[in-house]
Amino acid sequence: MSVLVPQEQDFPTWYQDVIAKAQLAENGPVRGTMVIRPWGYAIWERLQAAIDERIKATGARNAYFPLLIPEAFMRREAEHVEGFSPELAVVTHGGGKELAEPAVVRPTSETIVNSSFARWISSYRDLPLLINQWANVVRWELRPRLFLRSSEFLWQEGHTAHTTREDAHAYALRILEEVYTDAMVQELAIPVFRGRKTEREKFAGAEISWSCEGVMRDGKALQMGTSHELGQNFARAFGIQFTDRDGQLRHVWQTSWGVSTRLLGAMIMVHGDDHGLRVPPRLAPIQAVVVVARAGEGVIESATAIVDELKRAGVRVELDDRVEVSLGRRLIDHELRGVPVRVELGPRDVAAGQAVLARRAQAAKETVPLRALAEIPQLLADDQATLLGQATALRDGRTRAAGSVEEAREIGGEGVARIPWRDCGVDGEERLAKAGVSVRCLVRADDEPVDDPDADGVDALAARAY
Amino acid sequence: MSVLVPQEQDFPTWYQDVIAKAQLAENGPVRGTMVIRPWGYAIWERLQAAIDERIKATGARNAYFPLLIPEAFMRREAEHVEGFSPELAVVTHGGGKELAEPAVVRPTSETIVNSSFARWISSYRDLPLLINQWANVVRWELRPRLFLRSSEFLWQEGHTAHTTREDAHAYALRILEEVYTDAMVQELAIPVFRGRKTEREKFAGAEISWSCEGVMRDGKALQMGTSHELGQNFARAFGIQFTDRDGQLRHVWQTSWGVSTRLLGAMIMVHGDDHGLRVPPRLAPIQAVVVVARAGEGVIESATAIVDELKRAGVRVELDDRVEVSLGRRLIDHELRGVPVRVELGPRDVAAGQAVLARRAQAAKETVPLRALAEIPQLLADDQATLLGQATALRDGRTRAAGSVEEAREIGGEGVARIPWRDCGVDGEERLAKAGVSVRCLVRADDEPVDDPDADGVDALAARAY
Repeated sequence: MSVLVPQEQDFPTWYQDVIAKAQLAENGPVRGTMVIRPWGYAIWERLQAAIDERIKATGARNAYFPLLIPEAFMRREAEHVEGFSPELAVVTHGGGKELAEPAVVRPTSETIVNSSFARWISSYRDLPLLINQWANVVRWELRPRLFLRSSEFLWQEGHTAHTTREDAHAYALRILEEVYTDAMVQELAIPVFRGRKTEREKFAGAEISWSCEGVMRDGKALQMGTSHELGQNFARAFGIQFTDRDGQLRHVWQTSWGVSTRLLGAMIMVHGDDHGLRVPPRLAPIQAVVVVARAGEGVIESATAIVDELKRAGVRVELDDRVEVSLGRRLIDHELRGVPVRVELGPRDVAAGQAVLARRAQAAKETVPLRALAEIPQLLADDQATLLGQATALRDGRTRAAGSVEEAREIGGEGVARIPWRDCGVDGEERLAKAGVSVRCLVRADDEPVDDPDADGVDALAARAY
Repeated sequence: MSVLVPQEQDFPTWYQDVIAKAQLAENGPVRGTMVIRPWGYAIWERLQAAIDERIKATGARNAYFPLLIPEAFMRREAEHVEGFSPELAVVTHGGGKELAEPAVVRPTSETIVNSSFARWISSYRDLPLLINQWANVVRWELRPRLFLRSSEFLWQEGHTAHTTREDAHAYALRILEEVYTDAMVQELAIPVFRGRKTEREKFAGAEISWSCEGVMRDGKALQMGTSHELGQNFARAFGIQFTDRDGQLRHVWQTSWGVSTRLLGAMIMVHGDDHGLRVPPRLAPIQAVVVVARAGEGVIESATAIVDELKRAGVRVELDDRVEVSLGRRLIDHELRGVPVRVELGPRDVAAGQAVLARRAQAAKETVPLRALAEIPQLLADDQATLLGQATALRDGRTRAAGSVEEAREIGGEGVARIPWRDCGVDGEERLAKAGVSVRCLVRADDEPVDDPDADGVDALAARAY
């Protein structure tokens, strides 16, 4: 009778299953591409707005750079081209002719953004230059997976230039904290580890990469966002110089940072259960659905009145009066889609002045007097907090200290191992990698950013990862 | 001393000039591509939000379809492939290998959307299906021009499926009227001719195309938006069928419709003058700038107080306190960017309790008591109306009746000729085309949609066009 393959039985199949049945997304015809269906896209739009607002609050402005990049641009920064070459999609023909120079479809936009920055920046007065863009990017995927690894995905990518290394460093961390971590916790209801990437795991072309890592229900980690300090690598490659206050010509210091539709994968794998999605109320396109269980005396009128009242209270609400479809089928659909609150109403309920109230964040449903529905705005806030609490318990329950690389390998096989980086090191990291366990990031016991990986009190977080 | 080449002297150069100097956009490195700079993008974001709200009000939902389309998909609808083949960008390599089947970068998404629709639609209960996406598309341009004809542009494209031809027809016209025309008039302050495309000018694959056409300051017309009735062409090509109420299997009836970043080109060419842009207040990212003319006793405090008060009144306002830059330079920049209202304040103004108020929609500036600044929200509404009034006078002044094809050719050389379609016809259209004048659309004297081009009272609007 189960609608979905249970998570315990087969988590990857459950994941595919819930994406299909909740009508979030489906595979596109070109391998690895994805169609984001209206329900999935509406969640993304809300998340995007929440992130965009936070980005703008840091002073960054949105812009748009071209999809197509001359192949030669990619080759200017040596580590960058090495990192991305295997993933490039290349346009060789345009307008019915072979192109003199092939163009790559952007896998990320450092190169093309910086070719503009070189023209836009001449003085310290032009700095900091803080730019963001919302765009699609293409990275050819050999083992694609909806939302997690798709050949095309949607994201935002920030690109900034600063007068000093310190300013770039502070801004990269500000994005990590005030934009990414805050949006993940407040909007997605997902607590994350914030840390520094190892040399092995950092971004191609960066000096330092920072990341937010979430823990999924199957114990695997998911990189949910990254913020990079690029040093002067791209500034040198693209000749981005400014006249400083002292009249000297200097290269700028840069950052880049991004989050993508991968965040929807995190939402699914952290909050979803065997009945379907559970969309955090702040992101839910529909927060409450009022279901006419059966037609009858005054039911439609009563349901419509409830919908109107909830709308006035600022709740995003939908009326489900499709009585020609079986009630069971409809309830299953609302559970699959993860609508946070459901109100069910039949003729007997209306006569008794009551309704059935079901909350997706809780297991139970209860019969309540109609006047109790006025509390739904508060219940939605409570349920948002409940999901965050559950996700925090999940993360903490899956994270355990390891005293050796051997132990880290074992713990990391089914959760997150926390091991002093000094006890792991580059050699330990390689041994873990052979067992499919990677160091997700380096953190400190006091939760401050890691400036020196080799200092006291720096731990590695090791796990299998998506 | 003029900052821009005057419009009268050389309109195309003025256009390029103002885009560069107002920092709206610049050319990308791959021929025909464009970088939209923060000021240009912020205007686009506001316009996009205004259009998106109207699209959702018609019941359509947003989704996202892949950038890359299998080449074979394009070939399924004969007229469609013929229309788009010369403009395609083709990806032949991905992930370091030559692809078994090349993929085209979407020039529009009818084919890939309809391959999904074929899976999503099975019953009349699934209809109407109303989908929109915001996306980038690529059409290789031989003579590119920023915003007007760029090889990559940003747009929305709507795709819908209906049970009947009548329903599709009504929806295509609803989009033209309630979404496009309304947004152009209310937000862009541009009046448009709404009409039906001739057979020669219609969309590749459509049965009927409708369009909105604007008149620019140089007398040329600009197609600003289109809404197409696709009939059952794509439904047959992609096998989109539904079981109707009577149990019969039928093909759906479809529409598609789009507007793009080209609308920014219209804004520039309708409202811009020899001093720069004039951004309609409803779209202006900054509606008012408070300029500290010179530092001095209480000036910064007074300017800051004005900014705070305007913010509280809901005005998007910016403080310009860069006294290290010459006042002349700063005023020119604000005029170039087209900021609707400017308040200038120096020490003597503060002492006298007054400020200089300049409105971009008017030629003059005046000294006013500080308390008069409370009227700025109303002035912004007035200026929005002023721009619409001026644009309407421009359009009507440039439009003249023609009694013959010969006369239409003359009038159309410098404005819009209105000629009875019966006096023009397909032959006349071809003669006009040889002179660089095209029939932009067919309209009726009573402004109702043209169902029969050959009926009484149908006029052709003929002009040179971008």
